[in-house]
Amino acid sequence: MPNQTLGGAGLRGQSAGSTSLCTVGKSGTGLTYRGYDITDLANHAQFEEVAHLLLVGHLPTQQELDAYKERLTGLRGLPDALKQVLELIPANAHPMDVMRTGCSVLGNLEQEMDFTQQQAVTERMLALFPAIICYWYRFSHDGVRVDTHDQSEDSIGGYFLKMLTDKAPSDLHKQVMHCSLILYAEHEFNASTFTARVCASTLSDLYSCVTAAIGSLRGPLHGGANEAAMEMIQDWKTPDEAETNILRMLENKDKIMGFGHAIYRESDPRNALIKQWSKQLSEAVGETQLYAVSDRVEAVMKREKGLFCNADFFHASAYHFMDIPTKLFTPIFVMSRLTGWAAHVFEQRANNRIIRPSADYEGPEHQDWVPIEQRS
Amino acid sequence: MPNQTLGGAGLRGQSAGSTSLCTVGKSGTGLTYRGYDITDLANHAQFEEVAHLLLVGHLPTQQELDAYKERLTGLRGLPDALKQVLELIPANAHPMDVMRTGCSVLGNLEQEMDFTQQQAVTERMLALFPAIICYWYRFSHDGVRVDTHDQSEDSIGGYFLKMLTDKAPSDLHKQVMHCSLILYAEHEFNASTFTARVCASTLSDLYSCVTAAIGSLRGPLHGGANEAAMEMIQDWKTPDEAETNILRMLENKDKIMGFGHAIYRESDPRNALIKQWSKQLSEAVGETQLYAVSDRVEAVMKREKGLFCNADFFHASAYHFMDIPTKLFTPIFVMSRLTGWAAHVFEQRANNRIIRPSADYEGPEHQDWVPIEQRS
Repeated sequence: MPNQTLGGAGLRGQSAGSTSLCTVGKSGTGLTYRGYDITDLANHAQFEEVAHLLLVGHLPTQQELDAYKERLTGLRGLPDALKQVLELIPANAHPMDVMRTGCSVLGNLEQEMDFTQQQAVTERMLALFPAIICYWYRFSHDGVRVDTHDQSEDSIGGYFLKMLTDKAPSDLHKQVMHCSLILYAEHEFNASTFTARVCASTLSDLYSCVTAAIGSLRGPLHGGANEAAMEMIQDWKTPDEAETNILRMLENKDKIMGFGHAIYRESDPRNALIKQWSKQLSEAVGETQLYAVSDRVEAVMKREKGLFCNADFFHASAYHFMDIPTKLFTPIFVMSRLTGWAAHVFEQRANNRIIRPSADYEGPEHQDWVPIEQRS
Repeated sequence: MPNQTLGGAGLRGQSAGSTSLCTVGKSGTGLTYRGYDITDLANHAQFEEVAHLLLVGHLPTQQELDAYKERLTGLRGLPDALKQVLELIPANAHPMDVMRTGCSVLGNLEQEMDFTQQQAVTERMLALFPAIICYWYRFSHDGVRVDTHDQSEDSIGGYFLKMLTDKAPSDLHKQVMHCSLILYAEHEFNASTFTARVCASTLSDLYSCVTAAIGSLRGPLHGGANEAAMEMIQDWKTPDEAETNILRMLENKDKIMGFGHAIYRESDPRNALIKQWSKQLSEAVGETQLYAVSDRVEAVMKREKGLFCNADFFHASAYHFMDIPTKLFTPIFVMSRLTGWAAHVFEQRANNRIIRPSADYEGPEHQDWVPIEQRS
């Protein structure tokens, strides 16, 4: 069978399979999870409802949601061996390397023996990912061993903030975390999800699939945009200073992080949703400059380049207002996207063929063997 | 841009990019590395020459090969933190989970800070992968902490056997390891290599790419075939017993591991190469039944189904004759394929676009939001 090259490089526009989980840029505001519009989900749901929608297949009843959250809060204890591994990872490690390693180690300690365990394994990861990153962060940076069994917060977002700061998070912060985790939960065949599906197609275990996906999300072209946006805006004191810098960067053709998208053409539906929370947080914190700076950057990019903010840009200021260290932004993405990754692995397993494309060969033609003593 | 679905499921027959590294099923005996026929390489080269060919771009001169091997032997010391992690992984862990975790941990301790370090990082992994698996295996199974600095063997295959058995390997065994590692080194856009390229396309670090690839190779549809073949044949005492069992398995439509291939149609060029070594080993060991059993299985599969042995089938008996525990077969594959994975990552980085295909949506149409108290 000859190779067929149709889409551009990077398989853009080529179908690599089918899904019932998500549409991107198709209709309505452009992002749906199992048919539900992202705006409805982000405005009304808890993250755990969306996790249930993606992983189990439907929005839970109150009884189902209560049971689901109770199971998840009961699974927060880190195995001792995993704690010891996290204590061995230095403070200057890349937090995404810590997440990737934490997931991989867990796969040694609590193997997925067969696919009937996939829901249980996913629930364990959902419960433990906030614990993994916070245990490492607090130990390596503050010398504190946090008690990850803490059940004072019944949501994943609230639990993360509690582990990180050792303070009960406000209702506002918990609401923002629900919204943020919902916005990042799923996005069709993005690079990390596709990584998970390729891995799943060999019928490997779920920990391998998620470990692989974390590795892909680590890349600066994929998961790191909100961190890069934060690093860009954090030193600008006023909107005017921001505008001057953005114009200079555009003139230098510097890359401006947090704008545009591979699929969306006119806007990213997630931007308006997180932007409203960034505004509320800035007022609650009384730190209005960073929001004003962000707002100006958005306006300048629109005016100068016709480019819109993607999901990442106002996440930067929103997370910052909640005192989350910039280098932990992408690990939050992991806690959320885990739901999409796992749901895609379930789909791949249910109707599998190994993903094994072809390549166009452009190397040398036949080479005669040359014994080593005759080489030069 | 509308989705274009052309190849079958699993992207079969669809090009996902270009490569100068390898052709599969194209001409000659059907497998070439940078234009060199696999038969020439397997019959004449050391594995380190092939690693140099794939990673640096040409077969080394004697001086280059000496320097390359000297660098690799000098890089065998495991970091203390990695040793401690390996000691925390129980004996009943899946050895591929150990490899995946060992690679991921190393990425925390010795980060790839930018792509100029990619050759150095690859050399470190080449030197350490045999040490990682043997240190864990010997500690968890025998309670022994092996000294991985050992420089008594100057080849990767010989070093692996020395670490594993604590005995100097014979010349025959070292020759077989060269051949085996060469045969498994590279195979175009197979699932694990494609995983590595998808990960690389986000511009993630090399450890993430290789960790992800190990997770894919772990899958029973990909890397585990030689182990499965060994488990199948190990209890058959005679060729006649093997034939009876194979015929029964065929009648039951059981999957017979080690036969057929997704790309090759008439034969796998790697089979004859490893088969000859399996025969020599069986004579050297004086254990001829397992070889005779394997030979009969090959004949019956050809006669009954027209199916040929792939690279994995005679690897099973060859490794067994060298006293390698069955569950370490796939980790050897990792030590070898690392060269192909890394070379593909270098290629992807040199001409990158993020790999982000589309999907055919087959889920529900628009769903109206239903408040939780109204769900049933």
